[in-house]
Formats: sequence, structure tokens, C-alpha cells
Amino acid sequence: MVGIVGGGQLARMTTQAAISLAVDTRVLAGDASDPACFAAHRVEIGDPDSIDVLERFGRGCDVVTFDHERVAPDLVAELETAGHTVRPGSATLRFADKAYQRQRLSEAGFPVPEFTIATTTAQIEAFARRRGWPVVAKSASGGYDGRGVFILDGAGAAQAVVDDLGDGVLVVEPLLEIEREIAVVIVRRPGGETVTYPVIETVQRDGICVETLTPATIDTATGTAATELACDIAHTVGAVGILAVELFVTPAGLVLNELAPRPHNSGHWTIEGAATSQFANHIRSILDWPLGETELTAPAVAMVNVLGNAVHGDPIDRLPAALEVKGASVHLYAKAMRDGRKLGHVTALGPDPATALTRARRAAEMLGSPTPAAISPTTDGARP
Amino acid sequence: MVGIVGGGQLARMTTQAAISLAVDTRVLAGDASDPACFAAHRVEIGDPDSIDVLERFGRGCDVVTFDHERVAPDLVAELETAGHTVRPGSATLRFADKAYQRQRLSEAGFPVPEFTIATTTAQIEAFARRRGWPVVAKSASGGYDGRGVFILDGAGAAQAVVDDLGDGVLVVEPLLEIEREIAVVIVRRPGGETVTYPVIETVQRDGICVETLTPATIDTATGTAATELACDIAHTVGAVGILAVELFVTPAGLVLNELAPRPHNSGHWTIEGAATSQFANHIRSILDWPLGETELTAPAVAMVNVLGNAVHGDPIDRLPAALEVKGASVHLYAKAMRDGRKLGHVTALGPDPATALTRARRAAEMLGSPTPAAISPTTDGARP
Repeated sequence: MVGIVGGGQLARMTTQAAISLAVDTRVLAGDASDPACFAAHRVEIGDPDSIDVLERFGRGCDVVTFDHERVAPDLVAELETAGHTVRPGSATLRFADKAYQRQRLSEAGFPVPEFTIATTTAQIEAFARRRGWPVVAKSASGGYDGRGVFILDGAGAAQAVVDDLGDGVLVVEPLLEIEREIAVVIVRRPGGETVTYPVIETVQRDGICVETLTPATIDTATGTAATELACDIAHTVGAVGILAVELFVTPAGLVLNELAPRPHNSGHWTIEGAATSQFANHIRSILDWPLGETELTAPAVAMVNVLGNAVHGDPIDRLPAALEVKGASVHLYAKAMRDGRKLGHVTALGPDPATALTRARRAAEMLGSPTPAAISPTTDGARP
Repeated sequence: MVGIVGGGQLARMTTQAAISLAVDTRVLAGDASDPACFAAHRVEIGDPDSIDVLERFGRGCDVVTFDHERVAPDLVAELETAGHTVRPGSATLRFADKAYQRQRLSEAGFPVPEFTIATTTAQIEAFARRRGWPVVAKSASGGYDGRGVFILDGAGAAQAVVDDLGDGVLVVEPLLEIEREIAVVIVRRPGGETVTYPVIETVQRDGICVETLTPATIDTATGTAATELACDIAHTVGAVGILAVELFVTPAGLVLNELAPRPHNSGHWTIEGAATSQFANHIRSILDWPLGETELTAPAVAMVNVLGNAVHGDPIDRLPAALEVKGASVHLYAKAMRDGRKLGHVTALGPDPATALTRARRAAEMLGSPTPAAISPTTDGARP
């Protein structure tokens, strides 16, 4: 029995993958309308911030895992002390705190952006004096999909963010010149055995991933360096299960953006586009089973997120029309429609990046998703 | 909401496929230990031979479908009269009765074996006087996986089968000279739109499918003829959803073996091996949605069933070892171990038939399944 804390689309797709392996799953959802609740056989509704709830949930599970990183690592450590097997464990989950992560990985010599930890406007201003405005301020914890990330153009903006901060902490960084955003999705067993998926190119809009393309349109040396860097980071943070490492390609080389110790949006294409999906490999790795192969099933694989668009209504109502699009695989999460919300994704395989992207975008558009400003690869892998 | 009558592995895999399309499913299982019960979100336990149970189950469903053909067509007709949408409908399900099927399809000019309908030993003997012993006797209804099929070498054997027959009916046919067994899996929408998967070669042992290989190692003309024949049959029986048409390749040409109006063992390879799985296409077709493409994702796709083997114990205990086999995708059904029972299957893709078969057989063997006497294709498609 695998217990999954969190009932979002990641739990939904992990549960779906577990069926093939006859692995029983149990989902701890916050709400009965969460995406995994419409897919999982066993669902419990409960507060993941309660150690009593977590303890009761973990009983009878061979391993407990997560679809989000919002459970406090101290609670996870309590679970571990009580004898539960939790993967990834509390030591890894601490890296979800961006302040902790930047400090630890900087000390370990990884290429993180120059940064400071701030709780006051004066601290932000001091950093900006050295590096110039604008700066990027990120909530150390709780942010996702662009929430908790602020581009600050001066002291006034900094003050506004600090005023809203409460007892939170900010990581402040320069606004980097970014050539490209990429991600490496890694699978790691408790003993350290690791496999990696091909490097993924990601496109974000307003902090939300809108598209991915695999393989990324980068040169071989950059791809190798990114993969090695991600593996080293996985080792350093003691990852078990899926770890997604998001990187910036900058004129000065690779720079770490974010870590996610769980199946990740940048790896959704693996369901159709890789020999083994990230969800199946997450299950296999946290059970300490042999990992599945990660090679591509086509020369190019595109993934486009389906975002809510009030103008066009619920994608579920538009699904039959979207299924007319050849070569596209649609995944909907059964979430209530809301503007800008991730409601599903489309994956398309193709003989080249342009074909794969065109197919996936077309199906996402038929589902009513706003057209993403996009990767524009040429078929030879170079960028126009 | 799609209601699936029957809780076997077909319902399990259909439910799994429905998750991606955000199609809600509800399963009517005979027993809480049925395979679909460990995968489906909504399960009801009930007797599918009760019109009251079926009526209650069908309420709130957009469409009712089946994972087996053991529900009496008269009951299904009652459901339809009561206003439920049932796909496939009662008119198609009547073809699951082998006597009805042979009579109707023979009248329609399809190449069925010479046959007679028998309830007495005298009738079987009369047929054997014309065609010679042995003859094949099949229960008109209720048989599956080799059950209800008897090879009779004389009057004594015929008498024994008739004695056990009760009020059943036998279809008696000559023992054909079979070069090869193939299957065509068809998807058909209510309006008649049809797609077909590439022709599948199947290997049976003791009436149970042990292996499939796609594409079948047959010449193009035979493949085309098989596909056209299957499409004509689908039209004649008014199929909606998946229809599997099993054919014998004989020296005298193609001969119809069996029909199955549902996702079928011969199509399990489509989960990894085709652009759209038979399970996803079953859902799409019964909802009258556009059908997914059926082309192969690799030059050769092999599927090997995992059968219970008392010597080796439960495949679930052997799963981690089987996952070591490269290139094989394992599916286990969470069924209680029993000798000879279908407990799962393995699919492997390969650059050629021999590679795909070797991978799939190796994983099935690691799961403890008895080694199947096998298809032995050469890589050029000819048969040694």
C-alpha cells in the first residue's frame, strides 16, 4: 500500500499508473472534489498539517509519499520517528524551502543565483544597491505556479511585498538574463540508483508552465552538463522518487532555478513520450523496485498545459472536438473550471519538434486553453 | 458517467483509461475481490442477472457497457426499452451465443466453419458421419478461455459432453486445419464510423490466449482480407465499441472463429503498442466521440499473458524481479492466484518480432508464468 498525501492531479496520475503494477494506493485529500478523488479507489479526507491525521493515514502503508510539498518537514520527521517509511523523506523535503535550499546548495558549490535572505525592505534595498533593480523576490515557502514570486522595480514595490509577508521569509535574487528554461526529471531509489529522462525545455508564462518540448533544443554539452548537475543535486538532497530540477540557461552557464521532490509538470509528457512514465517510476522508486527505462518513444514530444479560460468555458465540454485532433493525447483532471487554472494537459509525439508542438497546441486550443506564446523550434534543433 | 457491467480486468483497464479523459465510471462487480474493485472509484456489488440491479445501476449513467458477455440479451433489451443507452446493444450481444452467431453469419454469407446445432449424441454422430471424427463441440453460451470447447473423437466422448449439457446447446464443427490464428480489433461508433488496429497474431494453448504478436506474420493480401471481413462483420452485427474478430487462417482461406463485443485479450498490447489503447477507444466509441488513431508505436509489439503457476506462486511477489527485464511493460490484475488463471500480461515493443517476443516472454517467465509454446517469427515476417 502506497499512501499519497495530497489529492491533486499528480496524485491522480500516480494512482492511475499504480493500477498496472497492482500497487494499492490510498490518497489523503484535503477536499472530496480534489482531482485524485475521482480516480482513486481509496480516498481519505483530512488535514495533512495534523500529525494525528498523518499518523493514522500512514498506518498500513508500506510507504508514504506526496503530491505537493506543503507538509511541514518537521511533521514528516515525526512520522519517520514513529516508524513510517516516507519517501522522499523529511531531509529532502526541507529543500522545498527556498531559503534553506539556496543556502545549502550554495554552500555545496552548486550554481545558484546570487541571493540574499530578506524579511525587511532595507535588506532588499541593500541587495538592489549591489545588483540594481529590478530584483526577484520569492516567498521561501508556499509558492507554486508563479504565486509567491515578485519582480520588484524599487523600494515601493519591495515595501508592498514585505507588508504582505507576515512571518514569512523572502529569497531575493537578481533578475537573470535567461536564454532558455530547461528541466531534468530524475528518478532515484533509496540506495542511490538513478535514471534521468532526456532534458526538457519548458516555457513559463506568469510563472506557470505552459509548454514543454523534449528533447530540449540545446547543444549536447549543455544537455550533459544539465543532467550531471541534476544528478549531483539529487544526491546532495538525498532524493528518493522523482526529483525535478529546473534550470536556467544563461549567458554565464547553467543556473539552478527550482527543485520539486515529486512528479512534476515538466514530466507529464513521459506518459506517452517515454518508455516509462514519471508516475510509474515514482511508484517503482519509492518502493525500491527496479526503475523503468526513460528513453523517448518519438523524435520529439510536446506537452501543452490546458489552462482555464473563462471565455471558452469548461474544457470537458469541448473534449469531443479536441479528440478530432490527430496525434494528440488529452488528459483532463476533473477540476472545477477557473481562469488560468491548470485543468489538464495534452501530449503529442512527432517526427520533429514543430509537428509535435503544432499538434499539442491545436488540441489545447480546441479545449479552450489560451494560446501560449511559444517555443519556436526549427526542425533541425536550432532556434530561430 | 459510464457504467461497466462486470468487474474483471477489462473493466479495470477501461476504468484506468477513462481517468485521462475525465470520464467518470461506475463498475457493477459480482464480488468485492474482482480486479476492477481495486482500481475503480465507484464500485457496486450486485447480480447482473437481475433486471432490478441493472436498472438501478444504469440510472444516472450516460451509457452502460460490459466487461463480459454473460448478461442475457433479453435483460439488456429490457434495459434499452426502459430508456437506457446500452453499447453494445442487445442486438449485438445476441451474437455472443455461438449458435445464433453461426446461423446468422452463415446466412449472411460469411466464411463460418461448416456446423450443426446439436443437443443430442445422435446429432453429433450424424455430423461426424459426414465430416469424420474428431469434431469440435462448443457450448453455445457461457464458454470462455477454452471452457465449453470439446474435441470429440467418437460417440463415447460425444455422449459424455451431452450428458453434462443440461438444457444447453452445442455448436458442432469439423476440426479445421489451422495455419495460424489471427484477430482483428475494431472500434465502431454508433453512426458506423470504424477504425481497425493492425492485424494481430494470437497463440492459444488449451483454449487460452498465451501470446500475441502485432503485426501478424501474414502476407498483405491476407491482412487486407481479414480487416475487410472483420469490418463487414462489425457492420452486420451492429457493433458499437470494441469488437474483436478472431479468425483462422486455413489452407482454404480465412474462417471465422469467435466474436467478442468488448475490449479483448488480443488487444491488450494496444496500451503501449498503439497510438490509442483499445480501452480508451472503447470509451470514446460508446460515448460517440471521435476515435483515436490505431497505428503501431514500434515495428513489432508482443504481448504475453501471465498465467497462474502453482509452482512459482503469486506473480505479485515476483514483480520487482520482473521489472529488471528491459523493454517490458507489466500489467497485473490483482487477482487471487490460481493455476492457469490469467493474472496479468506483459507487453514489449521491439525493432522486430523476435526481440519484442523475447522481452515479453522473459518478463512473463520472471513473473512465474509457464513458458508458452510460441510464435517463432523470423524478422522478415516469414515463418520458419
